[in-house]
Amino acid sequence: MLRAAALQGLPEIGPGDDLPALIADRLPAKLTAGDVLVVAHKVVSKAEGRVRALGSVTPGPRALELAAEHGKDPRHVQVVLDESRSVLRATRGVLICETHHGFVCANAGVDASNAGAAELVVLLPADPDSSARALRARLGELTGESPGIIITDSFGRAWRHGQCDVAIGCAGLAPLEDWRGRTDADGRLLRATWVAIADELAAAADLARAKDAMEPVVLVSGAGRYVIEDDGAGALALIRPEREDLFR
Amino acid sequence: MLRAAALQGLPEIGPGDDLPALIADRLPAKLTAGDVLVVAHKVVSKAEGRVRALGSVTPGPRALELAAEHGKDPRHVQVVLDESRSVLRATRGVLICETHHGFVCANAGVDASNAGAAELVVLLPADPDSSARALRARLGELTGESPGIIITDSFGRAWRHGQCDVAIGCAGLAPLEDWRGRTDADGRLLRATWVAIADELAAAADLARAKDAMEPVVLVSGAGRYVIEDDGAGALALIRPEREDLFR
Repeated sequence: MLRAAALQGLPEIGPGDDLPALIADRLPAKLTAGDVLVVAHKVVSKAEGRVRALGSVTPGPRALELAAEHGKDPRHVQVVLDESRSVLRATRGVLICETHHGFVCANAGVDASNAGAAELVVLLPADPDSSARALRARLGELTGESPGIIITDSFGRAWRHGQCDVAIGCAGLAPLEDWRGRTDADGRLLRATWVAIADELAAAADLARAKDAMEPVVLVSGAGRYVIEDDGAGALALIRPEREDLFR
Repeated sequence: MLRAAALQGLPEIGPGDDLPALIADRLPAKLTAGDVLVVAHKVVSKAEGRVRALGSVTPGPRALELAAEHGKDPRHVQVVLDESRSVLRATRGVLICETHHGFVCANAGVDASNAGAAELVVLLPADPDSSARALRARLGELTGESPGIIITDSFGRAWRHGQCDVAIGCAGLAPLEDWRGRTDADGRLLRATWVAIADELAAAADLARAKDAMEPVVLVSGAGRYVIEDDGAGALALIRPEREDLFR
């Protein structure tokens, strides 16, 4: 049985905070093999100082132009451009960007909500897989058990309304489970079955927390079959390379 | 706490089988208010007779052409075209289609895996929301408690590798949770937070079952805040209309 429950009582996180220790202190019980901790990226980003004060941003000509066209704050747009490798679409007040990591998402993941102070925006971690590996290593030291770690963001989707949480970083977990070439219960070849485990775990964890409460960390148990000994390929393995992509 | 566990011991499903009764017989305990049953569409499709024998399909000129170009069975391609309102992309052996319901997915959801007999392909239900409502009503009669129902398929995603299960039908459940205009823990406006609850539940349930076992139905508890009294808007509410879509 899969179980997901949010950790209670985490404080507001700021630059330099010892996030692994804060998490370890709030675990409801000793971690067991196969546990996964799913962490909303905002607390990771804030602990890592990946925030920018809009007051210190000077928008360039492209940001000014996009902001005027789409009714946005030009300083916010400048931060989005700074975080983007390319802008795929700019329309209806939304910039769909490819981040420097290669993730395709609205506004390059730059978000003002939950930033904790006016005029501050929160960026995605610079290297979310590395953040996940560091969190895993430190939690292993603090608790004696290395959980799988997933760092998440909420992404919109082409063709479908609403957002789902997805993995932008992971460690100690197989991000994809490949059934291609394997057979089903009837012995038939499973042709297109390649499951985005880390994204499904991110989605499951999102259901266990309230968006308006301070519940950025969710403990998932019963997913031990996806937990691995080493750090694994990370969430970068979930990115479809541009040459294989049909929708840019 | 969110919990998801697959029902055990469901038999192979065929046309005319009483799926609600088969499910009701295998519930581990009495349903309680707020329970959600997540059902892989294949058993629904098979019970509804939504299968086609490739032997009875005569491919037309477009199917022959696409099949030759992409190395596919022209009869299978004909079934895909029959199930499609339009083909968005045809490349690398994959047809990305918009189904008659409006879902965008590979091969219009037409799948040979798990079909239970050679040369049979399984289609999506003709009206998955209606299937979900019927299943909910009948389970209400059989058990005295009407669970939320989600009917799922595994969809690939633009820009990301792997598939996630998503909702193609639902009843008794709010498919989307709208936090737009509401405020977070700091009193800041949550601007882009519109959560695809039904898709996240579909993803969570997928983790609770093995793809190679006969475990098409998963009972999710602890998600009662998303369960509603009436049938609700259904999974059609998850479809982004073409006029709002940036990626066709």
